[in-house]
Amino acid sequence: MGKYVFGVDVGGTTVKLGMFDGEGTLLDKWEIPTRTENSGENILPDIAQSIKAKMAEKTVEKEQVVGVGLGAPGPIDAAGTVYGAVNLGWGTFSISDTLSGLLEGMAVKAGNDANVAALGEMWKGGGQGCRNMVAVTLGTGVGGGIIVNGSMLTGAIGAGGEIGHIHMEDNETEPCGCGNTGCLEEYASATGVVRLAKRALQACDEPSVLREKPLERISAKTVFDAVKEGDALAIKIAGQFGEYLGKGLAMIAGVTNPEMFVIGGGVSKAGEVLFDYIRPHFERTVFKGCRNAKFALATLGNDAGIYGAAKLVLE
Amino acid sequence: MGKYVFGVDVGGTTVKLGMFDGEGTLLDKWEIPTRTENSGENILPDIAQSIKAKMAEKTVEKEQVVGVGLGAPGPIDAAGTVYGAVNLGWGTFSISDTLSGLLEGMAVKAGNDANVAALGEMWKGGGQGCRNMVAVTLGTGVGGGIIVNGSMLTGAIGAGGEIGHIHMEDNETEPCGCGNTGCLEEYASATGVVRLAKRALQACDEPSVLREKPLERISAKTVFDAVKEGDALAIKIAGQFGEYLGKGLAMIAGVTNPEMFVIGGGVSKAGEVLFDYIRPHFERTVFKGCRNAKFALATLGNDAGIYGAAKLVLE
Repeated sequence: MGKYVFGVDVGGTTVKLGMFDGEGTLLDKWEIPTRTENSGENILPDIAQSIKAKMAEKTVEKEQVVGVGLGAPGPIDAAGTVYGAVNLGWGTFSISDTLSGLLEGMAVKAGNDANVAALGEMWKGGGQGCRNMVAVTLGTGVGGGIIVNGSMLTGAIGAGGEIGHIHMEDNETEPCGCGNTGCLEEYASATGVVRLAKRALQACDEPSVLREKPLERISAKTVFDAVKEGDALAIKIAGQFGEYLGKGLAMIAGVTNPEMFVIGGGVSKAGEVLFDYIRPHFERTVFKGCRNAKFALATLGNDAGIYGAAKLVLE
Repeated sequence: MGKYVFGVDVGGTTVKLGMFDGEGTLLDKWEIPTRTENSGENILPDIAQSIKAKMAEKTVEKEQVVGVGLGAPGPIDAAGTVYGAVNLGWGTFSISDTLSGLLEGMAVKAGNDANVAALGEMWKGGGQGCRNMVAVTLGTGVGGGIIVNGSMLTGAIGAGGEIGHIHMEDNETEPCGCGNTGCLEEYASATGVVRLAKRALQACDEPSVLREKPLERISAKTVFDAVKEGDALAIKIAGQFGEYLGKGLAMIAGVTNPEMFVIGGGVSKAGEVLFDYIRPHFERTVFKGCRNAKFALATLGNDAGIYGAAKLVLE
């Protein structure tokens, strides 16, 4: 009679679920919609129902389930209490207690989605073998998940690893989504790269393949494709991106001394070429004792969350 | 028959030792010289001998000693291996195994001195009640010790919490002791405050009580005494100090989400007036979710190291 673990990754539009065996092999994965209406009151009941249906389908008994792990976008402390998750409509309550109650007392653990995804990448992804790691997600925003001695750095109220909002630039005029100005996210996210590109294109007449498209159709991918073609202006933009990100990661390295940075998210699809732009600024500004941190690409993609959530329970 | 713990804080000139009961009450403290000659080969034997002598003096049996904790200036990993400690002459070896061998198998734990002192301040000092805390020592340099969920953040090779070398200023021309340029330590240490003061005094003719002394006799204390007298130039210097430190602590808060910053070291003798200069820049640049971090003064002074070392064993 095997043992099973469920990993749940709650996003703003869909909830991803995974069923794993006790060794962490993904046996099945599926999705359900995230119903955010009425303060997101249906989200956990929907998840509980979906897990029970899967157990029935696979004839898995409650006694065979080690537990359910869950990652969600918001500050969540080590005990599994969420302190408000705007995208889900949630206020403050114990995810662990609520979901466990809906699942007849099964063990439930919960954590911030970026931290949980970092745990997944350490366990089965780009950071395998590390005990001290920083996962950096370069997507619409810049997310971070920090693993210290094998566990997630959660912080006082689950806001640990919010590296996208490290203040990097006093001279910035456009505000970040968080309300501050000059955050790392304004330069190193997909959106940030596009912003840097628009600024660069508008500030000069230098020829560039980036001018072949209308300004509003430029994406981070367009920029890094142009970098690979050797486009001088695109290389300049990648240089700015790399300077902010390299300096930001150097600060983080001085604080947490990781063995590795695992870079994921949409921008990371550009591949290892990113590291050529990040590393020089990292190495120039990092404390020498922390200089040996390696850089690797994330490998689990959108599954990092369900893997990490399962690992939460198996820890 | 009581239980006892020894806490040892190895400095470049003296080793401080403390004998504690099992509840962490300091029963006795004393010092021995640090003999750094011959690659510091006598340091651990001297410590072992001193502990044995104290046990004989107090008629404490080996069975009554829970263990010995030790903090030393250098990168030390969670297993108690030091990776070179320049000030002591040490190379790479296991402090835990070596000292335990010299003490007939007593349990020994070791950690970086700044991290260990942070643990002490959390346990019995300014950070009591916290589980997530950052200790900042503003002395000759800027030291840091980060406590995550009640334990020291050690990092991959024990270089976690090296916050004095966070890169803060691209336009700095004078190098830091670490070889980089623009480190936090160049602005926020006692030495850094003096440097800022000299720059300010040389850059203008503004009258100031700081001009009453020869330039080479200005200390961080002189500057903050002048601040308390309302001296405009000194207030400007404190403003620069506070801007760098406030922004640096904001970055650290975004990474580790502490409940509290505990500020110690020579500069902290100026008292809570420091916070008036740090907080505005902290609040302006910190990620909003981490804004509630409190500021407190360290209270254990030079005893933080022996307290933290004892706590290492009692964890």
